[in-house]
Amino acid sequence: MSNLQKEDFSAWYIQTIKQADLMDYSPVRGCIIFKPDSYEIWEHIQEEFNARFKEEGIRNAYFPMLIPESFFTKEKDHIEGFSPELPWVTEAAGEKLEERLALRPTSETMIGTAFGDWINSYRDLPMEINQWANVFRWEKKTLPFLRTSEFLWQEGHTAHSDEEDARRRTMRMLQVYKEVIEGLLAVPVYEGQKTPSERFAGAVDTYSVEAMMKDGKAVQAGTSHYMGTKFAEAFDIKYLNRDNEHVYAHTTSWGVSTRLIGAMIMVHGDEQGLVLPPKVAAKQVVLMPVGPWKKKPEIVERLEVLQKDLKATGIRVLLDDSDNSPGFKFNEWELKGVPMRIEFGPRDMENNQVMVKMRDLSDKVAVSLDEIMDFVPKALDEMQVRLLETARENRKANEYTNIDTLDELKAHIEAKKAAGEVPGFVLAGWDGELETEAKIKEETGFTTRNMPFNPPVEKTTCIVSGKPAKHTVWLARAY
Amino acid sequence: MSNLQKEDFSAWYIQTIKQADLMDYSPVRGCIIFKPDSYEIWEHIQEEFNARFKEEGIRNAYFPMLIPESFFTKEKDHIEGFSPELPWVTEAAGEKLEERLALRPTSETMIGTAFGDWINSYRDLPMEINQWANVFRWEKKTLPFLRTSEFLWQEGHTAHSDEEDARRRTMRMLQVYKEVIEGLLAVPVYEGQKTPSERFAGAVDTYSVEAMMKDGKAVQAGTSHYMGTKFAEAFDIKYLNRDNEHVYAHTTSWGVSTRLIGAMIMVHGDEQGLVLPPKVAAKQVVLMPVGPWKKKPEIVERLEVLQKDLKATGIRVLLDDSDNSPGFKFNEWELKGVPMRIEFGPRDMENNQVMVKMRDLSDKVAVSLDEIMDFVPKALDEMQVRLLETARENRKANEYTNIDTLDELKAHIEAKKAAGEVPGFVLAGWDGELETEAKIKEETGFTTRNMPFNPPVEKTTCIVSGKPAKHTVWLARAY
Ligand SMILES: [Zn+2]
Ligand SMILES: [Zn+2]
Repeated sequence: MSNLQKEDFSAWYIQTIKQADLMDYSPVRGCIIFKPDSYEIWEHIQEEFNARFKEEGIRNAYFPMLIPESFFTKEKDHIEGFSPELPWVTEAAGEKLEERLALRPTSETMIGTAFGDWINSYRDLPMEINQWANVFRWEKKTLPFLRTSEFLWQEGHTAHSDEEDARRRTMRMLQVYKEVIEGLLAVPVYEGQKTPSERFAGAVDTYSVEAMMKDGKAVQAGTSHYMGTKFAEAFDIKYLNRDNEHVYAHTTSWGVSTRLIGAMIMVHGDEQGLVLPPKVAAKQVVLMPVGPWKKKPEIVERLEVLQKDLKATGIRVLLDDSDNSPGFKFNEWELKGVPMRIEFGPRDMENNQVMVKMRDLSDKVAVSLDEIMDFVPKALDEMQVRLLETARENRKANEYTNIDTLDELKAHIEAKKAAGEVPGFVLAGWDGELETEAKIKEETGFTTRNMPFNPPVEKTTCIVSGKPAKHTVWLARAY
Repeated sequence: MSNLQKEDFSAWYIQTIKQADLMDYSPVRGCIIFKPDSYEIWEHIQEEFNARFKEEGIRNAYFPMLIPESFFTKEKDHIEGFSPELPWVTEAAGEKLEERLALRPTSETMIGTAFGDWINSYRDLPMEINQWANVFRWEKKTLPFLRTSEFLWQEGHTAHSDEEDARRRTMRMLQVYKEVIEGLLAVPVYEGQKTPSERFAGAVDTYSVEAMMKDGKAVQAGTSHYMGTKFAEAFDIKYLNRDNEHVYAHTTSWGVSTRLIGAMIMVHGDEQGLVLPPKVAAKQVVLMPVGPWKKKPEIVERLEVLQKDLKATGIRVLLDDSDNSPGFKFNEWELKGVPMRIEFGPRDMENNQVMVKMRDLSDKVAVSLDEIMDFVPKALDEMQVRLLETARENRKANEYTNIDTLDELKAHIEAKKAAGEVPGFVLAGWDGELETEAKIKEETGFTTRNMPFNPPVEKTTCIVSGKPAKHTVWLARAY
């Protein structure tokens, strides 16, 4: 058994996603190919979010990808935040354009312009739209799924009559993100507020859900922003209220992206490869004939019946009757993270049973063929719940809440490194000053992840200044 | 009642899609905003195709949008066909790029490069992938949905071990297109082969399904291409066959786009506005209280029950209990093309009935509340079938198969114009020469749509040269 995940997590990650056939590099810097096995995970994520958005009364739409340069300059913080990363179209159909067009990094400016046109009266509010789209951020360091020059995401944009309603939407979507990321991807997250320096460019308040990877590093899994009237002022999103006054709307935006795929892999994967939560796995069950060759036809026929029966109940099932050896197949499907393997050979046939191996458990169990149809969905549901619990336990084991000074933090990081362990998430008090936050990053590489709504404990003194803490923050290294 | 559709079809089209809230223009030339009511139509189209692709064993994936210039130059015909319309990224993150990157107009070159890497042995074939994506063609004349600088589409790309298998896939997808466009959008199409001059840039053979709009003009609704080994040679898609020889794969591609939305509107819309086929309508049924105000609460309560019951059976239903007058609401929902309107007032309550108006029929019918739950899905199914039949009749009425010379064609077009009627589709004999085809276009504005597989009659002499016809072709003006 390999020790690569433990010894070199990054190498393990790249090797695993390549071998499991999830992605390939492309000739365009930082742009990856989402191969069918990863794209299908994304489709399951989309299905779940679309169902949630519908419940919330949010409708999908599609806006142009190209954004005129002049749009960006309307909101000062926004352009400052994004301009270093923008790719530009400067020519089309053989002619130089009069104005450069950016490949959207996000659509606040495009949708803000449209909202400015569409919203006239309080009757038009709230206006709540979501878009599934490709977006571009030309970043220096890229990592498949987690940080790519082009990625796929959903971006919700809403406009409201007042702050209260806009803040309610902001917080509600953060909650939806938590529910879906935990419920579907089995990735536990901390919800909280970003510090001012980590806010979305142009937002009044940014909230996030943050997940811990197996190497202890953080992934920002989703964000939700309250914009106040800043974008409304920049894009003239005004409406006539019930008192017949023209006033600015309050806007929000919120998004999750294909980085969720990377986070899910880094939370559940093990030395054998991927471990996929059943709800998003392209294949939930693989059926495999085992044992002496001669018996194969009747064995395969029985498995075909089982495959058909399982398929009919909506289970995503595959029968691998290829000529490869069982050992080869075991490895292959474990690497690909298929949640359940069902083996069936001549002896099993005699005993009217199959052998079942769940991807996240080490033992095989015998299950009677009379009970298998009830067993499979139940076992998949249990695995879904178990993965979240296991991830919570892993996370808990790597949370540190007793570190009170920067020296202690440095010592903690050194000690973990020396022991070949992960430094994880550290809960700290923070005096709310930009300088103390910057100093943490500078001296340790840890950054503030968020100020959690429900921290395990409240920290009372700032980890840098020793002054009374204004906030309790999660610190971690981040992807 | 307006006569706009009859008198100025283009003006009717633009007015209808704007008033029905399907789209808005954007500040980027030729790029439109797909508002929720049109985007949802697209989502229903996607659902149906995804189900079909799955049945065919074709899986979705996602490839980078930006294509290095050098990729295009690998297949000569391909670059010649597309280069006049490409937008280019030339700078990113503040630096000029070493190589320009095109915004994909289609992904043969990107996916061809990947297939070249992924395909090694006959065991890897067929490789069959579909992508849902935004694509760009910077065209001079644009028209919402039908021809936009950025549009949404699916593009299928497959590689096969031999010509036979590749041609089978090419023809099969054309058939899938016909089934879905007729079955879901109720738009009848002619399937046939494109003439060489109308082939996809780089294809050996291009096939299309062509639809006739109410103004007699044609919309190419879907295309399927057999590439031979041309792209395989350009992108080195070679495999080791069973005889241990390295040989080129045979590839195909096929696509439909958001122009289907425009075609559907132009086939079914009428002077009152949109007429949406029930299978793709965002709302299939609108419930409306009518009659004296005082009775309203109990009327609305009964409609709320009906709404809930219909929703539970999967019907997409809306209750409009706004304060607008019934006349205003009738117009609004007719304009938006909602297939079924159900009215309910105090007298209906006494009679235990509702009044039902189907969008495509002029009479209202009374339906007992005891039978309404059976009635609604049945009436929607019937409307779906009826729309296709009506469209077939409209098309039949505008097909001309007795025109044998270019002078007759010109006279036909003039006569129709003078009568305020549409010139429609003309079936003609063609000698297969590029010059005769060019002459038709030059002198009449009609172009060859396709060489139909099942023409109503076989034409025997060329409409231009009078020589024996090699092919029977549909001629029409086209969008
Ligand atoms: Zn799936
Ligand atoms: Zn729908």
